Amino acid sequence: MDCLFCRIAAGELPCHKVAEDEHTLAFLDINPATRGHTLVIPKNHGTNVLDTAPDDLAAVARMVQKVAQQVEHALHPDGINIVQNNRPAAGQVVMHYHVHIIPRQQGDRALSGWSHIDKQSVDFPALAEQLRAAQ
Amino acid sequence: MDCLFCRIAAGELPCHKVAEDEHTLAFLDINPATRGHTLVIPKNHGTNVLDTAPDDLAAVARMVQKVAQQVEHALHPDGINIVQNNRPAAGQVVMHYHVHIIPRQQGDRALSGWSHIDKQSVDFPALAEQLRAAQ
Repeated sequence: MDCLFCRIAAGELPCHKVAEDEHTLAFLDINPATRGHTLVIPKNHGTNVLDTAPDDLAAVARMVQKVAQQVEHALHPDGINIVQNNRPAAGQVVMHYHVHIIPRQQGDRALSGWSHIDKQSVDFPALAEQLRAAQ
Repeated sequence: MDCLFCRIAAGELPCHKVAEDEHTLAFLDINPATRGHTLVIPKNHGTNVLDTAPDDLAAVARMVQKVAQQVEHALHPDGINIVQNNRPAAGQVVMHYHVHIIPRQQGDRALSGWSHIDKQSVDFPALAEQLRAAQ
């Protein structure tokens, strides 16, 4: 098995476990953005949001809430970012679907948000139609 | 009804709809980070990841995949970021749970990722135990 997170899910590699259920596992990110930065993965392999089984995505979403509540109760952050990156162009490093839970303190600058494009440059009705047609 | 996204979900305010099912709605962000930036919301109100009904979180996760696939097929991005912010300290602006789907092109700098804290400063086993105990 070549996938780092599959090996963690199988117990072949150690992790700092935060929570676990039948379909998902949550453990600390060992290169954290902030204290308490936790990852949630499905035990079944999926590369990213496009190819992961829908039931696994749903199970991860429920576990993300549980872990966010644990982080809330244990660490009392001012906010929490949930981030999931797909492909290297979006910052994905490990090619097994995983969701980042990042506790934030006011003004910590751990994440900087995003820039905006000029909204006048977007034909919103045509773009929405193009996306609807791709269903 | 004071909530902007509840009013959009109820059809009281317009949106550029991308997809819809019984429990969720997807529409274009009108202040986009990149072309194709789409939001997915549950039709039921929840403020953030902590208080939204688990079934609604799961339904949103399934819809996020569908919209990511639409974005993939229509726009052929190099990557996709999925981001969900909780409370103003984490960048949340509208206080109705919503997930951002942000198509990325290599080198577009639309999102900058995050900085890392010194991992030597974290007692990982003790922190994991603290979080597990908060379940």
